[in-house]
Order: sequence, then C-alpha cells, then structure tokens
Amino acid sequence: MATPEITLDPTTKKLSIIGFSGDFDKLVAVFTLATGAAAVGYEVNLFFTFWGLDAIKIKQGRSPVGKGFLPKVFGIFMGGLKSAPVSRLNFGGISPQIFRHLMRKNNVATLEELVEAAKALEVNFYACEMAMHILGIGKEDLIPEVKEVLGVASFLKMSENGQTLFI
Amino acid sequence: MATPEITLDPTTKKLSIIGFSGDFDKLVAVFTLATGAAAVGYEVNLFFTFWGLDAIKIKQGRSPVGKGFLPKVFGIFMGGLKSAPVSRLNFGGISPQIFRHLMRKNNVATLEELVEAAKALEVNFYACEMAMHILGIGKEDLIPEVKEVLGVASFLKMSENGQTLFI
Amino acid sequence: MATPEITLDPTTKKLSIIGFSGDFDKLVAVFTLATGAAAVGYEVNLFFTFWGLDAIKIKQGRSPVGKGFLPKVFGIFMGGLKSAPVSRLNFGGISPQIFRHLMRKNNVATLEELVEAAKALEVNFYACEMAMHILGIGKEDLIPEVKEVLGVASFLKMSENGQTLFI
Repeated sequence: MATPEITLDPTTKKLSIIGFSGDFDKLVAVFTLATGAAAVGYEVNLFFTFWGLDAIKIKQGRSPVGKGFLPKVFGIFMGGLKSAPVSRLNFGGISPQIFRHLMRKNNVATLEELVEAAKALEVNFYACEMAMHILGIGKEDLIPEVKEVLGVASFLKMSENGQTLFI
Repeated sequence: MATPEITLDPTTKKLSIIGFSGDFDKLVAVFTLATGAAAVGYEVNLFFTFWGLDAIKIKQGRSPVGKGFLPKVFGIFMGGLKSAPVSRLNFGGISPQIFRHLMRKNNVATLEELVEAAKALEVNFYACEMAMHILGIGKEDLIPEVKEVLGVASFLKMSENGQTLFI
Repeated sequence: MATPEITLDPTTKKLSIIGFSGDFDKLVAVFTLATGAAAVGYEVNLFFTFWGLDAIKIKQGRSPVGKGFLPKVFGIFMGGLKSAPVSRLNFGGISPQIFRHLMRKNNVATLEELVEAAKALEVNFYACEMAMHILGIGKEDLIPEVKEVLGVASFLKMSENGQTLFI
C-alpha cells in the first residue's frame, strides 16, 4: 500500500493498470502514471499480462525465457525492457535509444529508473496467471517484487472503487 | 445481467469494455476479462467499435461484409476472428496459430471458446452505431447475441459506476 | 466544465481520456467519445501525451515542431492530424483518406470536425508536461484551447470519480 508522507488526501485513492503492451513508450506511460500516482499517496496496482510481462522478467535482453520451444521463440523476440520497441516510428529499432537520449538530456527519468522508482514507492506488481500459462513463464522467471500471480477476478476485485486503465 | 450462483459479492459489480482493436491478442484480453468478470457475477458490457466489430460479425473469414466498394475492401482485410493478427510479432501471420497452439496445449480456452463462454455467461454485446455507419456494416451482419446498436452517450450511461476499459 | 442545456442528468458526470496514440482511428475514437459525452452534459477532460500531442499542435502537416534536432525529427514524422496513420491496415498511407471519404459519404463528422465540435462543447484540453519535455514541445506550439500543461498527479486528481480511459 503506497501511502508515503506526501499524501495529498486523507482517503487512499487507487490506480490500477493492466499492463498488456510491451512497447517502450507504453511501458514509460505505465510507470510514469504508476510513480506519479504513488508519489502522491495512491495505492497503485500493476497487473502485467501478455507482452507486458516483459517488463517484470528477471532475464532482460533477448534471452529465451519460458519452457518449451515456442515460448522460447516468443521470449527471444520479446527481449525485455532493453529491447522493447516503440509502438510507432520504430525506425528499425533506433527509436527507443532516441527516447532514452531525450529522456536523459531533458532530465526525465528513464524507463529503468521509473521501474526502480516504482519499486521504491511500493507500487504493487502482479502477474497474469493465464498469460504466464500461454507463454510458459513461471513465477521464478519474474522479479521478486511481483507479489502474486493472479487471475482476472482477483485483479478486478482489487481494483474496485479506483481508476483502472488498460495500456 | 450476468449473476450466476458463483457470485462473490451481494452488490452487482460492473465491467464495461470498449472493444476497439481487432488484434488477436487484444481480443483474447477482452474476452478473458469479460468471462472472468461474468463468472464471478459482474454485469459485463462489451461495446464493439471499429476493428473490434470484427469479433461479432457473422461472416467470419476474409469475406466482404458491408455495403459499397470501400467497406468491402476493409471487410476483406479485416477478416474476422480466424484471421485476426497479433498486435506484435506477427511473423507474417503465423503468430495467432502459435498462440492457438499454446493455448490448446496449456489447457487455456481459445478465442472462439472464450467468445462462446461469454455468450453462455450472458455477457452483453453492443455495437457502435457510428463505426457501423463508417464501415457500412448493418445489424444483420452481426451475430444475434448483439443486443443493441448504441451511440456513445448510451454506452457511457450504461457503464457508469463500474470499471470501464478501452482495449 | 461542459454542461450545456441538453444535460440528461442533474449531477455532472465526468469522462477523462489519456490521449496517448497519434493514430487516426484512435484519435477519431477519442474525439467521438469526448463530443458524445460533452453533448449530454459530461465534464470531459482530454489529457494528451506522447503521440497524442500531435492532435493539439498548432503547426499541422509534416513540419518540424520542437526544439533541438531529435525532437524535430520526431515532429516531421509525427506530422499532425492530416497525416495521422491508421493503427491497422494502413495500405501505405491511403487508409486515413478512405476513412475520411467514408465518414463524409456517410454523414459522419470527420476528425477535424470532431475536434472543432469538442472545442465548441467546451471539452477541456490538457497537455502532459513530461512528454512535452521529452519531445521538446513548448506551450506555444500547442493550440490556444489547451488550458494547462499538467503532470500525472494533477490529471489523476482531476479525473477522480469519473470514467477514465487510456487510448
């Protein structure tokens, strides 16, 4: 429960995000919203599913994660935070680097820094059970900050009475 | 109103999804959320618009649906559930098959099974009036489970006091 | 605060949209939802970020907006409303024209008309501070209807107790 001292409001607000996309720019959006909300006292729940699972895998880089041949292929192509493509204007893979450069130059936190900030601000990380089944990813493949592997019903219950986004 | 016996909570909860995307993986997300929510007693409203209309067309496969030349072209390219592309890593159209294979292998419901489950769980299907106008699609082109063709205002009214997602 | 005379309900409802995408079809969705909601008395808040900023830039067309070399490159590729690509089936850039044609033929408001309608209905336009930093876009590059440049926390506070979508 992210309720640091800088809380603006007495009642705890809630922001829950279904992190579906593995695109660099959308992951930046997920973690910017998450850290921005947590910094002002929101409870923040991130529920990673499908390509979004990429953001919380331990093995970053284009390495095979997951059991079986096909999940391995997906794992190699997914590749993690460092090789996440931009959803648009990818210019043959240069764009994330341009973004990183611009983010650094303009003193905006980079994606990796945003992820670290989210951990520090006690943002809650969850992973989608079904997507993990499909992609052959186990709990042991995910960063230790992942609190729980959940199904849809549990996530919906958790995100009630707050704002929920699908990104 | 989907309120089967497995209800977890006395008050009916609501999940409304604007199904904009026609991508295979995003449609899987729409129907996984819909069936997961309906199974625990949520009222679920699916409002299909633009490419998402593909999921509720009667004629599946790359067939011309809609009146006029241009809507026909879109219809052929849209193609329905069986040819819905994956939003990422499409590998020249192989990826949905890989997903189907992985879903079957790992005992996860396939997209077609999820759609059937949604119907069985009395998920409410709606279609977007404006998108049907643009794409030249009539009510008769849609599956009979579509309860109504709606505009934005009616959908927003219907989804009040629940969680609303744009996918 | 968009509360024209056609209000359907005594209490003001709220719709807030994070406009992240610069895709033509998704921008049509943003402004269709915004105008549809505003027309029935909703307070509507549009918060443009990343590629979505394209929709509220003054200089439309593929012109360099923003300071520095890299932002300029992005500016040229982004190009504004007139050159916004469709998220799917782009057919080498023809698709937005086909859409425009279909929208005109079927008496549906075009994107430019929807934007003008949103202004007339007093939809609130906001721009994302961080994305403007990254892309080197200043307040002076944006249309005068943009009320404020905001951070995440302010936007979340503003959108509380309403429906919030990420598009």
